[in-house]
Amino acid sequence: MAKASEVVAKIEKAQEARRKRAVLRESHITMSHGSGGKATHNLIDAVFAQALSNPYLDRMEDSAVMSWDASSKVALTTDTYVVSPVTFPGGDIGSLAVHGTINDLAMAGAMALGLSVGFILEEGFPIEDLRHIVTSMAEASARAHVPIVTGDTKVVPRGKGDGIYINTAGIGRLLPGASLGYDKIRVGDKVIVSGDLGDHGIAVMLARESLDIDADVKSDSAPLHEIVYDLITQLGPAIHCLKDPTRGGVATTLNELTQSSRLAIGLQERAIPIKDVVKGTCELLGLDPLTIANEGKLIAIVDAQVADEALAIIRSHEQGYHAQIIGEVLPEPEGMVFMHTDIGGMRVLDMLVGDPLPRIC
Amino acid sequence: MAKASEVVAKIEKAQEARRKRAVLRESHITMSHGSGGKATHNLIDAVFAQALSNPYLDRMEDSAVMSWDASSKVALTTDTYVVSPVTFPGGDIGSLAVHGTINDLAMAGAMALGLSVGFILEEGFPIEDLRHIVTSMAEASARAHVPIVTGDTKVVPRGKGDGIYINTAGIGRLLPGASLGYDKIRVGDKVIVSGDLGDHGIAVMLARESLDIDADVKSDSAPLHEIVYDLITQLGPAIHCLKDPTRGGVATTLNELTQSSRLAIGLQERAIPIKDVVKGTCELLGLDPLTIANEGKLIAIVDAQVADEALAIIRSHEQGYHAQIIGEVLPEPEGMVFMHTDIGGMRVLDMLVGDPLPRIC
Repeated sequence: MAKASEVVAKIEKAQEARRKRAVLRESHITMSHGSGGKATHNLIDAVFAQALSNPYLDRMEDSAVMSWDASSKVALTTDTYVVSPVTFPGGDIGSLAVHGTINDLAMAGAMALGLSVGFILEEGFPIEDLRHIVTSMAEASARAHVPIVTGDTKVVPRGKGDGIYINTAGIGRLLPGASLGYDKIRVGDKVIVSGDLGDHGIAVMLARESLDIDADVKSDSAPLHEIVYDLITQLGPAIHCLKDPTRGGVATTLNELTQSSRLAIGLQERAIPIKDVVKGTCELLGLDPLTIANEGKLIAIVDAQVADEALAIIRSHEQGYHAQIIGEVLPEPEGMVFMHTDIGGMRVLDMLVGDPLPRIC
Repeated sequence: MAKASEVVAKIEKAQEARRKRAVLRESHITMSHGSGGKATHNLIDAVFAQALSNPYLDRMEDSAVMSWDASSKVALTTDTYVVSPVTFPGGDIGSLAVHGTINDLAMAGAMALGLSVGFILEEGFPIEDLRHIVTSMAEASARAHVPIVTGDTKVVPRGKGDGIYINTAGIGRLLPGASLGYDKIRVGDKVIVSGDLGDHGIAVMLARESLDIDADVKSDSAPLHEIVYDLITQLGPAIHCLKDPTRGGVATTLNELTQSSRLAIGLQERAIPIKDVVKGTCELLGLDPLTIANEGKLIAIVDAQVADEALAIIRSHEQGYHAQIIGEVLPEPEGMVFMHTDIGGMRVLDMLVGDPLPRIC
C-alpha cells in the first residue's frame, strides 16, 4: 500500500499544476494539438472557446443540443477523420466516420436521424479505393439504420492532402428520457466502461508498415446507439453522463468529466478490461492503454442504485459483453482521477500529454 | 441573327451528347472532379449516388430536408472549404465557410439554427493565422445571428495538408411557406439572379501570387438568408426554386435545374449583370464568367406573375441591388440552357467542363 502522506503529496502536486491556467506557448500548430489531450484542450481554450462563445458551444460537449420547439430537442455534431492508414483490421476511414458521428450523437442521448459527409480527395487518389470506402460507409449506414442524406466533394492538388479525409456531421433527436451532462454527475455514481480498452488505437498503429509487431488486434469501431437507447429508455435520468473515450482514451475522457463536474473519480485497476495483447503491445511501446483511442466503447456514469442493472443492459449487447464497473465518483480531490493499482499503490491519471499515436481517427 | 437551322443543329448535337450516359473514364481523382461541373457530376453518379442511395440523398439538392414531426421540417447541409489562398479581397476561408453553409440551408427555404465546424490544420500552420480565421468566423456568425454550436479539430503532418481546411455543416428549420425544388419549376417561370456574377472566383484567382493582373475585384461572399426569408414569407409557394451558383457558376447551376426538371431555360445575355472588370479579366484569361463561382448570389425561379415583386424584394437588400430577370423557363429543348447573345446569335450553355479555377471555395 502507498503511504497516505505519499498519496496526498502526489495529488497536491497535480492539483498545483492544474491551477496554473493553461497557456498556449506554441506559435505554430504541432501534431499534439490534434491528440485530443492536453494540447488540444489548450488550443481550444486559447483560440476557439472565447472567440466563438455561445451557450451551446460553451458546454464543450461532443454534440450541441438545441431546443427545436417546446417538445423536442435536436443534437448536432461533427467529426473529421484523417486516420492513417485508411484501412486497418476491423474497419476503414468510411465505417469509422459513420460510427463516430452516430456515437457522438448517442453520447448526448440522441438517436441519429441523418448524416452529412464531406470528402477531401487528393489528386491521384485511386477511384477504386474511393469505391471501397464509400461502400463501407453505405454498409455501416445501412446496418445502423442511419441514412447519409447530403454530401460534398472537394479535390486538393497532389501533396496537399493524404489520399482521403472525411468529415461527417449528423443530426439527432433527443430521447425523451435523456437527462445527461457533466452537471448531472453526483458523488457516489458508478463508472461503467462497456468493454476492452485500447483496441482501436493499437490496431491502427499496428497496421502502419513501419512497425514490425505481429499481434492480432482489431479496431472496435462500432455504433453504440442501441446500447444508449436501451439505457435511456429503461433507466432514464438515472443515467447521468455518457462519453465515448476516443482520442486521448479513457484517461482524457475521465479527466474532462472530473474537471467539468469539479468532482473526483477513483478507479480500480483490476476491474479495467484490457486484452492481454493490447496490454503487451502497450508495454512494448511504452504506451499507457488508458490514453489509447477507442471507437466502439462508452463510459457511463450512473446512479449507484441502477449500476448493476445498467451493467446488465450494456452486457446484453454484442458490443458490451465485456462491460465492467471500474470505479466511482468521489467528492474530492476536486478535478482529479486516480487509480488503485493492482500492486496496492495509487496513481494519479492525467489527460494525454503529447501525441504518441497521431492520426488515429 | 443565327439561322433557325443552325440553332436546331446545335441543340440536337448537345442533346445527343447528353443522351450518352455519363461514364467515369478516369481511374484516379483529378482536379476536375472538384470543379462542381461535369466531372464532379460524373463522379457523384458513378461512385456516390448508387452506393449511398436513399430518398433524401437521391434528390441531389444542396440540403437534405427531413421531416422532424408532423409540423416541422429540418434541413441538413455540409460543405468543405479548401480555398487557396485562405485570405482574399472581400473575405477569407472562415467567413466563406460560415456564409456558404447558411446559404445552402437558405436555398432549401431553411433558416440556419446552428453550424458545426471541423478544422483540418497542417502541422506548422501559424496560430496567429488561425486566430484571424476564427475571429472572421465569429464575426460572420454574429452578423448572421447563426451560432457555431460544436466543432472538431484534427492535425495532419507537414506536407499532408495546405495550412487549413474547414468543413461547416448546419441545421436549419424550414420556413412554413417554403415549397421549393426542381419539381416545382413550371414553364413560363422567370429566372432572377440577385446581382453581378463571377466576383468571387475572379477575386480569389487574382489573389494568387502567380497572376500579375491588377484589377479591383472583391469576393461577393455574403449570407443570403435574409433575402430568402423575405421572398418566402411574402411570396410563399410562388417562389419555385432557389440555388446559389457557387462552383461551376450560373451555367452549371442552370443546367442542373433544366436536367432535373426536364425543361429548358432561355437567357438574354444583355440582361445578365457582370461587372466590366470581371468581364475584362475573363476575356484576358479565356474564361466564361457564367462558369465562375459566386458566394453571395442566388438564382430564383419564380412564378411569372410575381417576378417583378420578387425582383423588388431582392433589390431591397444590400446584397441584391443589382438583381435582374435574366430569362425564363421553356418547355423545350428538354434539359437545355441557351442564351440569346448581344450580337443576335444563340449559344448553348453547358455545365463547366474541366476546372479552370481549382480551389476557389
